[in-house]
Amino acid sequence: MNTINIGLFGFGTVGQGIYKVIGRAANAHAEIKRICVRNLSKPRTVEVPAGLLTDNENDILDDPSINLIVEVVDNAEASYRIVTSALKRGVPVVSGNKAMIARHLPELIELQRRYDTALLYDASSCGSIPVIRNLEEYYDNDLLLEVKGILNGSSNYILSRVFDHNEEYAAALERAQQLGFAESDPSFDIEGFDSLFKLIIITVHALGVYVSPEQIFTYGIATINSHDIRHAREKRMKIKLVAQVVKVSDERFTMFVMPEFVSPSKYIYSVDDEYNGVVIRGECYDRQFMFGKGAGALPTASSILSDVMARRHGYRYEYKKMGYMNRPAYSTDVVLRVYLRYTGRDYLDGIPFLNICEMHLSEDFNYVMGDIRLSDLLACREQLSDPRVFLANIPRFFLELDE
Amino acid sequence: MNTINIGLFGFGTVGQGIYKVIGRAANAHAEIKRICVRNLSKPRTVEVPAGLLTDNENDILDDPSINLIVEVVDNAEASYRIVTSALKRGVPVVSGNKAMIARHLPELIELQRRYDTALLYDASSCGSIPVIRNLEEYYDNDLLLEVKGILNGSSNYILSRVFDHNEEYAAALERAQQLGFAESDPSFDIEGFDSLFKLIIITVHALGVYVSPEQIFTYGIATINSHDIRHAREKRMKIKLVAQVVKVSDERFTMFVMPEFVSPSKYIYSVDDEYNGVVIRGECYDRQFMFGKGAGALPTASSILSDVMARRHGYRYEYKKMGYMNRPAYSTDVVLRVYLRYTGRDYLDGIPFLNICEMHLSEDFNYVMGDIRLSDLLACREQLSDPRVFLANIPRFFLELDE
Repeated sequence: MNTINIGLFGFGTVGQGIYKVIGRAANAHAEIKRICVRNLSKPRTVEVPAGLLTDNENDILDDPSINLIVEVVDNAEASYRIVTSALKRGVPVVSGNKAMIARHLPELIELQRRYDTALLYDASSCGSIPVIRNLEEYYDNDLLLEVKGILNGSSNYILSRVFDHNEEYAAALERAQQLGFAESDPSFDIEGFDSLFKLIIITVHALGVYVSPEQIFTYGIATINSHDIRHAREKRMKIKLVAQVVKVSDERFTMFVMPEFVSPSKYIYSVDDEYNGVVIRGECYDRQFMFGKGAGALPTASSILSDVMARRHGYRYEYKKMGYMNRPAYSTDVVLRVYLRYTGRDYLDGIPFLNICEMHLSEDFNYVMGDIRLSDLLACREQLSDPRVFLANIPRFFLELDE
Repeated sequence: MNTINIGLFGFGTVGQGIYKVIGRAANAHAEIKRICVRNLSKPRTVEVPAGLLTDNENDILDDPSINLIVEVVDNAEASYRIVTSALKRGVPVVSGNKAMIARHLPELIELQRRYDTALLYDASSCGSIPVIRNLEEYYDNDLLLEVKGILNGSSNYILSRVFDHNEEYAAALERAQQLGFAESDPSFDIEGFDSLFKLIIITVHALGVYVSPEQIFTYGIATINSHDIRHAREKRMKIKLVAQVVKVSDERFTMFVMPEFVSPSKYIYSVDDEYNGVVIRGECYDRQFMFGKGAGALPTASSILSDVMARRHGYRYEYKKMGYMNRPAYSTDVVLRVYLRYTGRDYLDGIPFLNICEMHLSEDFNYVMGDIRLSDLLACREQLSDPRVFLANIPRFFLELDE
């Protein structure tokens, strides 16, 4: 077990957090040898020795003394270029870039195999909560049935301000941006894509199957309004943005990201503010719940540190479940019960509900509750993305499986 | 990765659970080759093929085709004999016997090193929650500050019936026994020893230090009465049996098992019934919470399955933190604030409180709240074990560190 000499790409808040955390971890036997940034002259709160910073990627990639790349740049293309270049040189990488990983995971797995090296990315899903590692190692068996949770801290913070603190949605979003929980362009978080990318990564380690982003129904919270919020409150529920992958039979599983009506008896009901919470359900052990800080520079940095130390012991993901017998197949042929709030008399015409069990029409608030195939929701994506429409899942049916 | 041929010791409820779970896990590539029981003619609910059962330990230990021993006998001496015999033959072992492991861990670690083999025991602490593995691997760094939780499902079930369902303590205990959550002799659970043994194992993997049982202050819930319960309720708190190990400085840590007044804002407040919940606190990531079924044959069996599958990949605990620089030292020189309910005018005389901040005297209910050194509680163990006395921790002081 040698010293880990790190080449760090990216020195924003997470990169600076990593610099601090590695400095505190004497038993990591790790040292940051070089830091590659886009702009050398940008002011930074963390001071580093002269000569540590460079704006030339090759100063790291070509340095034979560097035996681990840590990559936390905030640009998916740059991330892809750096990670694949490093892997092709046989240098292991720790990355936190969920969008890049979720889009390119099959290729990244293949590169790890071909060049006999490792890519670790526990920080990419749920910040400091060790979800990926546990799915890969501890839940490495046939018992796993479902992984479901709140995977995005920013949108959860906003919903939490709305439901627990009676703030208006717009004010909550603004506050989240001020606190740094949401980006200046918050669409990645609030439209569900951040949760989606994490769910894709989780599914590879949960069931051994990769499903690409465009195949998965993803709906965010951007269009929620005060009627939806009041409606949920009257039923003593909260609306949460939930990502889930669920085995619906021995042969099939489904997955999606959607706002959900959550009753107080559910574990995820109490996951508030910027926290993440994941429920892992399996035969025999029923439900386990993991909860922690899902966002923030230091929680993410602590997760990166765990991956760095795992490399000291040569740890790599084996993607064991990809070699399982009888892996379940991805399916959208399942029926969900949903709440759909809409505007306009003819809006529902193109939406193939199997049945409607509740309908409300008034001057300013129309909604239906009914059953619909997930495949039909996918097909109606365009129509559902109308800014005057809001859709949410009502756990039921196969989701009777739900906690 | 070869097939795992298991020799199973013990075929009570947990052993039978393992038999069922392994049968369901096709991708485990594991098979139970032989089962050693004490009494061949005892009736069992699970039927097994003729010839699988034996009452001769050597039928397993001497069988060269068996490459993993799983040991779940309910007797600590037999467990010690089986585990050490197997390790000395170089055969890896999965065990769930927390009492045996907690008492003999230094020797068991040495045997694993000397005979280059492995002993896994994630099932020994918190049933199905992967606490040990995560402390060993994921929290393998200098950031960890505290592990605190409800580690015993039986006592928690009883307290839960009392606080959430208004049952009398005696009725709740009886119900727990009927449901199989508590043994016919429940002292192991309700006097805190089960939690203690788990805490000892957790501490080895959390901080790399072994502390033997007799050095650790352990107080259970056996003497709780209706006054204590009403007192807690009036303050809108629950009393829970809590085990904790806490770094009190860079150089020192402390640990103990004690009933604790828990306020609704704490994660462990909502850990009810037979569930376990563990809070892991560290620099940077703050608090993480893991929650799941802590007791029961199938949850324990699912945890054993995780250890069995880990052996397919050659996994072993490296006890990495035992080799850390600057390991903290165990100390009882910390001050706790406690609640002490007692009987008899002179009872308090021998108890060296540093100060008393509240005192209540009435015909049938006397208590004090005050500050006392943990070392003095240890020294007064005898006096505190009076059946008319009940002691509970009130988190404060260094436990301001608490969530």
